[in-house]
Amino acid sequence: MPPVSTAASQAGMRRRNLSLVLHAVAGHGEISRAAVAAEVGLTRAAVSTLVEELLSLGLLAEAGLTRPGTVGRPGTALVLSDRGPAGLGAEVGVDHLAACVVDLRGKVRASAYAEAPNRDHPPERVLADLAGLVVRVAREGAAAGLRPVGITVAVPGLVGRDPGTVERASNLGWEQVPAGPLLTAALADAEPPAGPPAGPPAGTPADDPSGNPSHAPSAGPPSSAGRLSGLPIGLDNEANLGALAELWLGGHDRGLRHFLHVSAEIGIGAALVVEGRLFRGAHGHAGELGHVPVRPAGPACPCGARGCLEQYAGEEAVLRAAGLDPARAAAERPGPGGRVRLLAERAGTDPAVRRALHRAGSALGLALSGAVNVFDPQKVVLGGGLAELSPWLLPGIESELRRRVTDRHWPDGAVAVSSVGREGPLLGAANSVVRSVLDDPTSVRPREDPS
Amino acid sequence: MPPVSTAASQAGMRRRNLSLVLHAVAGHGEISRAAVAAEVGLTRAAVSTLVEELLSLGLLAEAGLTRPGTVGRPGTALVLSDRGPAGLGAEVGVDHLAACVVDLRGKVRASAYAEAPNRDHPPERVLADLAGLVVRVAREGAAAGLRPVGITVAVPGLVGRDPGTVERASNLGWEQVPAGPLLTAALADAEPPAGPPAGPPAGTPADDPSGNPSHAPSAGPPSSAGRLSGLPIGLDNEANLGALAELWLGGHDRGLRHFLHVSAEIGIGAALVVEGRLFRGAHGHAGELGHVPVRPAGPACPCGARGCLEQYAGEEAVLRAAGLDPARAAAERPGPGGRVRLLAERAGTDPAVRRALHRAGSALGLALSGAVNVFDPQKVVLGGGLAELSPWLLPGIESELRRRVTDRHWPDGAVAVSSVGREGPLLGAANSVVRSVLDDPTSVRPREDPS
Repeated sequence: MPPVSTAASQAGMRRRNLSLVLHAVAGHGEISRAAVAAEVGLTRAAVSTLVEELLSLGLLAEAGLTRPGTVGRPGTALVLSDRGPAGLGAEVGVDHLAACVVDLRGKVRASAYAEAPNRDHPPERVLADLAGLVVRVAREGAAAGLRPVGITVAVPGLVGRDPGTVERASNLGWEQVPAGPLLTAALADAEPPAGPPAGPPAGTPADDPSGNPSHAPSAGPPSSAGRLSGLPIGLDNEANLGALAELWLGGHDRGLRHFLHVSAEIGIGAALVVEGRLFRGAHGHAGELGHVPVRPAGPACPCGARGCLEQYAGEEAVLRAAGLDPARAAAERPGPGGRVRLLAERAGTDPAVRRALHRAGSALGLALSGAVNVFDPQKVVLGGGLAELSPWLLPGIESELRRRVTDRHWPDGAVAVSSVGREGPLLGAANSVVRSVLDDPTSVRPREDPS
Repeated sequence: MPPVSTAASQAGMRRRNLSLVLHAVAGHGEISRAAVAAEVGLTRAAVSTLVEELLSLGLLAEAGLTRPGTVGRPGTALVLSDRGPAGLGAEVGVDHLAACVVDLRGKVRASAYAEAPNRDHPPERVLADLAGLVVRVAREGAAAGLRPVGITVAVPGLVGRDPGTVERASNLGWEQVPAGPLLTAALADAEPPAGPPAGPPAGTPADDPSGNPSHAPSAGPPSSAGRLSGLPIGLDNEANLGALAELWLGGHDRGLRHFLHVSAEIGIGAALVVEGRLFRGAHGHAGELGHVPVRPAGPACPCGARGCLEQYAGEEAVLRAAGLDPARAAAERPGPGGRVRLLAERAGTDPAVRRALHRAGSALGLALSGAVNVFDPQKVVLGGGLAELSPWLLPGIESELRRRVTDRHWPDGAVAVSSVGREGPLLGAANSVVRSVLDDPTSVRPREDPS
């Protein structure tokens, strides 16, 4: 419990109140100052001062008069700005790269995608390719007046406590890769060097063909701070970011605050959300569901153990159990999600595929029942490839949970299927930047800031 | 995030600063006002005002001058009071009852214990017997000038979100038992009726043979609020309270903040501590390690599932695997912990007992490796009967964890043996009352309060 001194507490209170106002606007989409004051429990005068500051930071905008018929005299409605500060998300998959820019409302305004055999390339090359996509979406965002204030990268591996290093990503062959600094260096190479102030004057459309996002109208003059290579870069595990996307975009409102999110691409990953926040564990490794033992003496797993869940419900294990050759399946349906689509198509006609998926569901249910007994979530949410295969997985999952969660009634609906889809990790990455702005609006430089 | 209004924030800040000062004193045992000010980052004037309030609440006391040689002029040392507000803990076991009073320093000042065949008695009878012990320790505490400000009861079952009801305690045969209200009623029956003010004048020794703790010097005149039946009563699962005792009393200082505590008596229970707080889960059921599946098609468990951990590492399962009859063992070593002591004694000479304990350790390691993969704790701590049997259990536990926690190095020392012992749940119960006082000193009525 940190001490409360008056100065620190006032700065903290101002930051907290700015954030409260911003969250109130985010929660309503469009809302008057008076309604904000009623919702957050501050005086109208205090809210007006806070709103002025948020307008000057470019975080809020005014959207004409509120509808007549609401209480009090009509006021100007506040909305989150759809220009200015934005979130940039990027993703390193085993077979692809992606990047996108979202505005403060969470709307995707630019995106780029590329197939990429990342498993066969050194990390420097992978991150140089990613930097190319990042520059491309930032340029597209700048044309719409958006200025990324941070970058979050989703990786298929463990990040741990140092947010700049991938500790291990087995499916990429990465160990202790400083992906944050490598991406910063790659962005510096990909961006034209910072020159003297030469951007268009603030307010004119930014269609500068150089695409340097520091030339965007809201970004101020070019400087190292305004360049992509000057932005803070965070890395996070794709399963963590998928779970956050589910929390923020999954349409559960505030009802679902404590859940276990399970997704599968090449591996199986899970993430725990507790009271609306990601639960990372002591070393940042929480959620390693793929290596929970299903049968103590089961098949050997590349991790070194035996009988891990991935040996029963991982993509390759299911393909083999269905009598399909994983390599041939990948050739038949290339690109991310191809093999999952193949399984979904074949399940309609091939009983061997249905049987393999049912057995995978039972193994998932077995591992999940242990996790549910220990962690006691409201729900389990199936994301990524598991969502697409849920019609065939759910019966096995639910039957094991019903049988093995015995300290209470485990209702069937407590296993939900994600509506966010395969883009969960990328959307979670971009929105995590936006959330950090909503949580601490003072982290954004004022538009006028010349530095 | 609740809104921050000025009045609410000032009341909250006062409460928080009172708590900071109290925790600073608790952390040092004996400390000057100046040192408190330096530690919590408030001015000396502010600390003096807070200390006056804590002295008047009977939470702090002065202990003569601080040692010369410390910085600044000598001041009066502050200590937590060893009179006045106190915590009362109680425990319902399958075969026993217990109660104790601890002072604000966490020292046990009164305790009582009784063997009791609670499995065969209706809950009303069990709680009436417990009320007898509670009255006895409260009387003993009152003689030492201690006034319990709350009661926490450890139960071998699930409490859930309503802190007054035991949802289920299979080993007692309890389902939805309102144990809180039942104990309040039993205490009202066990205490003499509240009469007109008749206690000894404040300051005289309280050796009133009626033993009514409302007659204690610091408790003010007798009134329903000063009676045991007027105290707030909380229930909690014994495994949760054992984990909290480990956190508060286990000698880990502030280094161990995120761990999985496993204990076993008749059943196997676990509890998760996250950032120094108990993690309860969405329904208050977190930590049901005993029903994590070890082998999907293993022996049937009374819970309805198959292959649960309790069927491999529960007390009766181990006795049977060792060729011992559980009922005969209980007759041979009656009382709580008797069968565990029997196993520990026999392990020295009987290879069948050693083999059974090794297999139990492997099963524990298997279930724990799943929990560690999902929850990522700093350590696993073995408490209760598992601590006594740890010499024979640890090899199996550690070998499974080493083999199955593969996302990082799992060091041998990461499985620790509790030093708190079998009294963990009772000590956790009593200290949880004390902690609630340290966390919110304003919850304590002033000694002068006539209500």
